[in-house]
Amino acid sequence: MIKTKLLITILLMSVLATSNAFAAKKVHRWKLAETWPTNFPIFGDATKNMAKMVKEMSDGRLIIQIHSRNKHKAPLGVLDMVKAGQYQMGHTAAYYYKGKDINTMFFTTMPFGMVASEQYAWFYHGGGMELMEKVFDKHRILAFPGGNTGNQMGGWFRKEINSLDDLKGLKMRIPGFAGEVLAQVGAKPTNIPAGELYTALERNTIDALEWVGPSLDLRMGFHKIAPYYYTGWHEPGAELQFMVNKRAYEKLPKDLQVILKTAMRVAAYDMYTQSTHESGKNLASISKDYPNVKIKTFPNDVMTALRAANQRLLADFASKDALTKEIIKSQRTYLEQVRPWTNISDQAYLNSAK
Amino acid sequence: MIKTKLLITILLMSVLATSNAFAAKKVHRWKLAETWPTNFPIFGDATKNMAKMVKEMSDGRLIIQIHSRNKHKAPLGVLDMVKAGQYQMGHTAAYYYKGKDINTMFFTTMPFGMVASEQYAWFYHGGGMELMEKVFDKHRILAFPGGNTGNQMGGWFRKEINSLDDLKGLKMRIPGFAGEVLAQVGAKPTNIPAGELYTALERNTIDALEWVGPSLDLRMGFHKIAPYYYTGWHEPGAELQFMVNKRAYEKLPKDLQVILKTAMRVAAYDMYTQSTHESGKNLASISKDYPNVKIKTFPNDVMTALRAANQRLLADFASKDALTKEIIKSQRTYLEQVRPWTNISDQAYLNSAK
Repeated sequence: MIKTKLLITILLMSVLATSNAFAAKKVHRWKLAETWPTNFPIFGDATKNMAKMVKEMSDGRLIIQIHSRNKHKAPLGVLDMVKAGQYQMGHTAAYYYKGKDINTMFFTTMPFGMVASEQYAWFYHGGGMELMEKVFDKHRILAFPGGNTGNQMGGWFRKEINSLDDLKGLKMRIPGFAGEVLAQVGAKPTNIPAGELYTALERNTIDALEWVGPSLDLRMGFHKIAPYYYTGWHEPGAELQFMVNKRAYEKLPKDLQVILKTAMRVAAYDMYTQSTHESGKNLASISKDYPNVKIKTFPNDVMTALRAANQRLLADFASKDALTKEIIKSQRTYLEQVRPWTNISDQAYLNSAK
Repeated sequence: MIKTKLLITILLMSVLATSNAFAAKKVHRWKLAETWPTNFPIFGDATKNMAKMVKEMSDGRLIIQIHSRNKHKAPLGVLDMVKAGQYQMGHTAAYYYKGKDINTMFFTTMPFGMVASEQYAWFYHGGGMELMEKVFDKHRILAFPGGNTGNQMGGWFRKEINSLDDLKGLKMRIPGFAGEVLAQVGAKPTNIPAGELYTALERNTIDALEWVGPSLDLRMGFHKIAPYYYTGWHEPGAELQFMVNKRAYEKLPKDLQVILKTAMRVAAYDMYTQSTHESGKNLASISKDYPNVKIKTFPNDVMTALRAANQRLLADFASKDALTKEIIKSQRTYLEQVRPWTNISDQAYLNSAK
């Protein structure tokens, strides 16, 4: 009997240890809603890479299933779906939600704002993450950088822009805040679904459009019908966002939280690297096959007017909300500190190494 | 008896399951040798951040202890110590080992070469990682990007450089390949230990020196005694390296391998972000407290001569070794593809947004 008792005791201890081991092996299954269609290049690669890293690093304990817009049918509903817990996380751009909350706008990119390297420094060392946390906290969401497109081009134009007058009445597809800035100088901004853009430009329904840059513009074919490709001013370092439902995040064990955060962080940086690569490759392809495409920079009077309009609109926003004011001030102060460095490092080098 | 037999069977199965669980909890203890002194800023932060992420993501199953040069006394012996398995990994710069293997030189930075964003694209999408693997394979080492300093400054000069003649006989602390390039145009490159640099410059033992950039130059105090701070040409995107002993890596379970690789990858990117921040902050401090410091760019004849000397030396290297030739060709071809993009994106933006 004593032997049997001992055996039973050992057995119970073993079962306990085993069940602990199984507890540690609990699989968390998450769903991610992305704004993009299925297999969208670069943006979609960022979510796939992130989910793959999480799966491998967690040894299969955190599995993230990705739903594209083709599945959830709500490309601009990502914030709401993550907030409601319908999805544990999302991949989108914060500035799509400015109609819902104006302060989400500042964490993607701003006209005449920071380039990617400067903006990452602001996020991680200049108070950007803390401000983003403040903004998204009321949506019960944790937001993180989700991948940078690099400096976006100013757009494809069918006619050359030689002065501010050429912008008056110009019909251009340029959504969001940049469109508002452009409207201030007399242009007619409009939004048109991606699938109809080529035809709209070809049939002169619009005179110009902006999309991203060579990385994603090449597949759209705009270079075949609009010979002027203008350099950027309105989205100098567009950063997408990962959004995570706060309660879902808090339910994860500590190691899976760090695994998720690390995977999102590296997937974001990696997307910037991939964007750089694809832009270089596709620009080379455009230059080779369509040598008539001319790269232009807007004349000084256009840039000056756009900059002034941008500042007017920002001052207006700042006057309406204390947090808006705080974010605008943080970004302006940081830019003033970091830009002189960018100017004497990469910019001076690129200018002198030509 | 049947009952006891059953109990013993269940007991054995439970013990087996428990021992599996304990096997999964095996702790791997690694040592990392870094080239830097204890608590060296930025470079040392990269190794600490990497080790912290690994510990947290692995839930304590991979612990990396960091030994600085103060401990191992062999700052330039990191490659050898990792190769021998004395350390499982190291943090250093590949180009320190060009005397041992000329082909290690190309993976840190090259004069007139790629800036950080371009070089990351080359590493991860342009064949750079594959070439680095080829080079380090014979040392039984896996090498990875280990953190970027950003564009390094051309150095602190006590006198202004107005033409190529001003470089003739100029005594400058500039080690490595860049020193060889400078020697080609008549300067006298030399190497002096970090601790003696300030005094050497103050007492005119040397006329000029290069260190890193504002991120690490400020603490050295050179701005107090050398009023000319020249923009860079010789290290446009200096990337440190993590080196991992191949056999030690192969002994890790798959999930720890991915955790280690991911942590190194993000620590490298993060160091570039931190360098950007510290450079901006410290440049602002120098500008404020030492308004007499003048930021200068070398005149055209100097840049042209340096570029020609660089190309002569590279052609010479390429003629001696097939792999060297392959690497130089890969870097040149990639730069030719990606630079036009850099020029029409960040550079055009920075020039037009002034």
